[in-house]
Amino acid sequence: MSDILYEFPLNEKIRTYLRVESLLKRLKHQMGQTDEWALLDYLNALFAVLDIVERGDLKSDLLKDLEKHEKQLVAWSQHPGINNQALQDLLQTVIQMSTKLTSSNRIGQSLRDDKFLGSIKQRFSIPGGSCCFDLPHLHQWMYQDTQKIISDQSAWLNELNVLSTVIELDLKMIRERGQPSSQVAVSGLYQDTVENVELIQISLPIDSNVYPTVSGHKHRFAIRFMENFSEHGKASCTDSIEFKLATC
Amino acid sequence: MSDILYEFPLNEKIRTYLRVESLLKRLKHQMGQTDEWALLDYLNALFAVLDIVERGDLKSDLLKDLEKHEKQLVAWSQHPGINNQALQDLLQTVIQMSTKLTSSNRIGQSLRDDKFLGSIKQRFSIPGGSCCFDLPHLHQWMYQDTQKIISDQSAWLNELNVLSTVIELDLKMIRERGQPSSQVAVSGLYQDTVENVELIQISLPIDSNVYPTVSGHKHRFAIRFMENFSEHGKASCTDSIEFKLATC
Repeated sequence: MSDILYEFPLNEKIRTYLRVESLLKRLKHQMGQTDEWALLDYLNALFAVLDIVERGDLKSDLLKDLEKHEKQLVAWSQHPGINNQALQDLLQTVIQMSTKLTSSNRIGQSLRDDKFLGSIKQRFSIPGGSCCFDLPHLHQWMYQDTQKIISDQSAWLNELNVLSTVIELDLKMIRERGQPSSQVAVSGLYQDTVENVELIQISLPIDSNVYPTVSGHKHRFAIRFMENFSEHGKASCTDSIEFKLATC
Repeated sequence: MSDILYEFPLNEKIRTYLRVESLLKRLKHQMGQTDEWALLDYLNALFAVLDIVERGDLKSDLLKDLEKHEKQLVAWSQHPGINNQALQDLLQTVIQMSTKLTSSNRIGQSLRDDKFLGSIKQRFSIPGGSCCFDLPHLHQWMYQDTQKIISDQSAWLNELNVLSTVIELDLKMIRERGQPSSQVAVSGLYQDTVENVELIQISLPIDSNVYPTVSGHKHRFAIRFMENFSEHGKASCTDSIEFKLATC
């Protein structure tokens, strides 16, 4: 039976990365689907990405991470037992992405400057605010030739290409740091001290009657398993729970 | 060649009806689709409906409208040349809906009281706020057996059944008041005085290079046609534009 994977960030940076990763997946899923609801969802996801990258220091966080990965890969490549083509390729990708990101404008700036997107973005935060009468020009855009719609979507998505590649690469390297091991949470609680962990992954069987919640930071975290959400709300689980844990 | 239909409400009540109608269509479209993005979009639409019905006086507006329709239908049914089975059926439906709406609780109250929905609603207003780590119990819900998910969705949608039927009936009766006629907007502008109009419908060929914007109220309105939204933003159209107009 397959597992459900739960991921919990232990700092604000990874929290942002995971949000952006999830939104980019949604964007790519809706890309090319031209029914009304898919188009609105695509735009919703696009505006959410712009809102997130506007705040905080995403670009400098990503650059710092790439630099850290580069140093690690260089160190590994000098070890004769480890160096190989795959590692060299990865190192090249990291350096390339670092250069692209450094030379690029503020992430998503061209999308923020886009007059069409700018003219509809505000309305999307109003419940039901993307009706025809709110945004007749969006309504017209959605009735255009499918090829024109897809070409616009594709151009917008392209503006997030560097962001998408870097986030994907960065999260991949972070996730690869963890090795899943079997653990038991006594009375539904598991605590551990760790060093510089940014992300924890918890796997549970798909038919488990509990779900995890996590609190913590890079040196220490606690996993509290909760019973399936019922009509009465949530309740802590007091049984021993077996699960798989990876700290990344 | 088919037309694009643009609808513009001339009062706040119809504005709300159209928003709710559009959200209910989205809910019904996503109902039963169980991929992650469709589920999130379903919930997004559900929460938007709840936000809208929470404000204002939707229920009393709908009741007043139904009463008005009932009087009109009774008047018609007393006219020997008009009375027929279809009219009698419609009158019965209006009376039934009026009774159901009167006897129902505040619209959507049971959804607002639902602990599961209540525990996730707030996060949905945060950009990217429906990630696994924000809402692990939602993540678990989405991985359940498809039948269980559909049964929950269906139960939630059922709570909006009366609202859905009444809005549909009411908008249908309002829309049927209008008779489309061909009109010309000289220099891209068309103005008219009307009596008790609540909704105007404008049809343009799908390949038209303009879209309409409307300002006005129940006695007077102006339609200003705009050129296709370009990278430079929007610009008023100064050509004569042929279009179809219905005032409802």
